[in-house]
Amino acid sequence: MAGPARGSARALLFALLAPALAALLALLVAPARGRGGRGHGDWDAAGRLPPLPPREDAARVARFVTHVCDWGALATVSAQEPVRGWAFADVLSLSDGPPGAGSGVPYFYLSPMQQLVGNLQENPYATLTLSLAQTNFCRKNGFDPQNPLCAHTILAGTVTKVNETEMDIAKQSLFVRHPEMKDWPASHDWFFAKLNITNIWVLDYFGGPKVVTPEQYYNVTFQ
Amino acid sequence: MAGPARGSARALLFALLAPALAALLALLVAPARGRGGRGHGDWDAAGRLPPLPPREDAARVARFVTHVCDWGALATVSAQEPVRGWAFADVLSLSDGPPGAGSGVPYFYLSPMQQLVGNLQENPYATLTLSLAQTNFCRKNGFDPQNPLCAHTILAGTVTKVNETEMDIAKQSLFVRHPEMKDWPASHDWFFAKLNITNIWVLDYFGGPKVVTPEQYYNVTFQ
Repeated sequence: MAGPARGSARALLFALLAPALAALLALLVAPARGRGGRGHGDWDAAGRLPPLPPREDAARVARFVTHVCDWGALATVSAQEPVRGWAFADVLSLSDGPPGAGSGVPYFYLSPMQQLVGNLQENPYATLTLSLAQTNFCRKNGFDPQNPLCAHTILAGTVTKVNETEMDIAKQSLFVRHPEMKDWPASHDWFFAKLNITNIWVLDYFGGPKVVTPEQYYNVTFQ
Repeated sequence: MAGPARGSARALLFALLAPALAALLALLVAPARGRGGRGHGDWDAAGRLPPLPPREDAARVARFVTHVCDWGALATVSAQEPVRGWAFADVLSLSDGPPGAGSGVPYFYLSPMQQLVGNLQENPYATLTLSLAQTNFCRKNGFDPQNPLCAHTILAGTVTKVNETEMDIAKQSLFVRHPEMKDWPASHDWFFAKLNITNIWVLDYFGGPKVVTPEQYYNVTFQ
């Protein structure tokens, strides 16, 4: 093929392939759809965790940790043999709101099939622990997970079903951060629940746990 | 400055600066020394998590999760007002051995200053939960943290101080994975502890928790 014709053929080929290549590239870089993903609060996927609030503002740190974590460990008193009466630690997903709009209330999406739900039905008192070790914060800063600088919070209270008025907020908070929940099987009788917080401890610096009251916690506003 | 002289001056400058630049570059790329780091089992740092064992081999999956996690959430019965008697969830570092050489025994490095230690002193029964949500496994595969495919394990038992014969193993297991522990202040009266496992549950697939016996768990061998 002669010079100018070959140039045009190449240009045409590029014009045809470029959108396909762009689409392929977009697919490769898009975070997995099942969890978080762009705009869904999965900050680790993009390494875009917001900065930690000043450590002396323990209430704000508690709200921060609760907001950036999308799962945690819940301790319930076991109703299940052979460990009846023991403290039982289990993992559950949570959300206190869409990214950038956290309310501080941890919402859950639970099924009676879960061991922790069986426990809660007998004893609704529970504590939830959330740690920045769950994000890339501690690794990036070289903080061991048990180092208080790798901040974590412990929220104690009762876990109850969400009532009618709060249903939409719970649903929106959870489904934005956990899109696959929409497809979880109806046979599992999923229901929305929340932790009614009565006690809060924050470990974010040396010197021991800081006590934060629910009032202080909920009074925090983020711009 | 004349041509060749300027060239020599540049070469000399480069020869002087290059080692400094190389050292600076090495510092920038070296993982944070405080946690894991190259060869210390911080797999996420290099994205080199070993493959998950076959899900039907629940004992092996339990050993896998216990080995790749270097922290977890421990539930203890609280001895602390105002939540005495409640199940208390807290975060702690752990290690079951150096990378690639896990024994399955979770070792801890604890201080009486920790709330969970105060609890254990009154009631040594506890459960530890460890989840692949703590690694990049679930995110990479698009598994929500509460999806059983994002495997997690619950280990129940008693937490006790490590005795003389096991001290060296505990120390080696922990300090290789958690190098900053070596520098933790002596004033905190750190001691080595372990979970004596009596019950194990594995959630790695649909269909509910799988029970694994301690015998099955400890019989797993990794090549």
